[in-house]
Amino acid sequence: MLKTGLATRLASRTGTLTHPTSGLAPSYLQANLLVLPARHAPDFRLLCARNPVPCPLLASSTSPGAFTTLQSHLPAHPTLAADIDLRHDAPKYRVYSDGALVAEKADIAAEWGDDHVGFLIGCSYSFEAALGGAGLAPRHVVHGRNVAMYRTAVPLAPAGVFTGGTVVVSMRPYRVEDVGRVREVTKGFTVTHGEPFAWGWDAVRELGIRDIGRPEWGDVCLTADRRGVFCQENGEGFVPVFWGCGVTPQEAVMRAGLEGTVMGHAPGHMIVLDVRDHEVFPQLDKGGEVAEVEGQQPVH
Amino acid sequence: MLKTGLATRLASRTGTLTHPTSGLAPSYLQANLLVLPARHAPDFRLLCARNPVPCPLLASSTSPGAFTTLQSHLPAHPTLAADIDLRHDAPKYRVYSDGALVAEKADIAAEWGDDHVGFLIGCSYSFEAALGGAGLAPRHVVHGRNVAMYRTAVPLAPAGVFTGGTVVVSMRPYRVEDVGRVREVTKGFTVTHGEPFAWGWDAVRELGIRDIGRPEWGDVCLTADRRGVFCQENGEGFVPVFWGCGVTPQEAVMRAGLEGTVMGHAPGHMIVLDVRDHEVFPQLDKGGEVAEVEGQQPVH
Repeated sequence: MLKTGLATRLASRTGTLTHPTSGLAPSYLQANLLVLPARHAPDFRLLCARNPVPCPLLASSTSPGAFTTLQSHLPAHPTLAADIDLRHDAPKYRVYSDGALVAEKADIAAEWGDDHVGFLIGCSYSFEAALGGAGLAPRHVVHGRNVAMYRTAVPLAPAGVFTGGTVVVSMRPYRVEDVGRVREVTKGFTVTHGEPFAWGWDAVRELGIRDIGRPEWGDVCLTADRRGVFCQENGEGFVPVFWGCGVTPQEAVMRAGLEGTVMGHAPGHMIVLDVRDHEVFPQLDKGGEVAEVEGQQPVH
Repeated sequence: MLKTGLATRLASRTGTLTHPTSGLAPSYLQANLLVLPARHAPDFRLLCARNPVPCPLLASSTSPGAFTTLQSHLPAHPTLAADIDLRHDAPKYRVYSDGALVAEKADIAAEWGDDHVGFLIGCSYSFEAALGGAGLAPRHVVHGRNVAMYRTAVPLAPAGVFTGGTVVVSMRPYRVEDVGRVREVTKGFTVTHGEPFAWGWDAVRELGIRDIGRPEWGDVCLTADRRGVFCQENGEGFVPVFWGCGVTPQEAVMRAGLEGTVMGHAPGHMIVLDVRDHEVFPQLDKGGEVAEVEGQQPVH
């Protein structure tokens, strides 16, 4: 069992860890990775600044080409990870060329060029742990499956080359009477998607979700007794609750059809940092009550 | 002619200025005002942080009840206005009680209570001046009318008590071939709505605008020769270009149906600050090219 962010990164770096990071290094902040050609970096920063709920930017390379030094976007946490190598520290990577997936690899040392900039983006593992702690464990966690993720018709605020993107949401079903508590528990997780974006059956239509029974990413959500698929108003008393999802920026990059080499972590194979959830989200020390929250830093 | 932010505030404060501030104190940053009971202030800050394009928060009262001291949210500009009184410095105010408009007044000294918090929100005057300077003056400016504003079906990311809100957009028609330059000129105005949110006739449907010929706020937009109303694909070669609009947070407050007394500036009757556009948006010194841009400060 890998217990710290550093141990997880080193295991990835040396090739001994190749599987998803869910459940590893509990309480250490995990992050999505996206690596872009430097000429698109300013537009991507702007995209994140304009869409902080689905695209919460945590950190980026200190300069084009830099893979061991990060500029943190959390003012209270200038050092998110001391010993880091963005080319090796995720257990698995994906490589895209001119917008198309071309490879899944253990590292991206060969692909990383002098003009690549890495971006770390917040992930929902932090608030899922808090939901579990509040007796509101998401069903996919209980069932050991991936969360269901959907495209919506909700436009992202565009930024330069990044046009035509829409918000991607993750979905966790909850009883109607629990939605208030679910909102309260997740509200303070401002840099990891925060409180839900929408909830209830009407929201499926309002968000323009094509088919709640067929998520575009992840697994279909099972009914509570695992005997069926949670996908309609079926009298179970659960409603879908939607959050902004870290797939959004990757999807926006694909939609923009960027030329050149783009890289990211393989889904579920996150980069784990040194900073801990309760340091970034102080409300975790206060039984879920929201205290000071941390937001976006200036766009550079 | 009132030439500075301070002169404009003092003229409002003493009652000699009672008309809209458009065109006054050129190059000084103008701001929307919203005043809420303190118990709703944390949720409102979160609403702005989660929706920075339509709700760009510039500053807020340093503490509940404070109307002469502001906490700036622009890190590079700790003092947005040195001598300010939020109760008097807009030329005209609106007062709402339990969600309903109850009065339009010259000042809100009588209504301002010990637990009221004022919020200043970015306004589009800054980028309209830049568009004019680039030979792209918005048509409503040329025609001396108010900009057309529309409700959309695009959901705001909710925040605590603020649920059910949608993005409000302003619309300025441009020739298709000019949209690229319009985007480039406005892109750097990150704290005053920035580049367009959407454009083109398809966007009218995608945003869920009910009737482009009937804006919910402001004036209908005239055709270039003023002989008709710009409201359909009429062969003129112009398309609607939409920006996030500062009416959004007021609309969100109304939709939330907050109990108690809420106040704001009367439309067009802004509070003018000491800081100048080219100080906040350094790209204005560089012929419209986007340089460093300033984003949102941490949520307190």
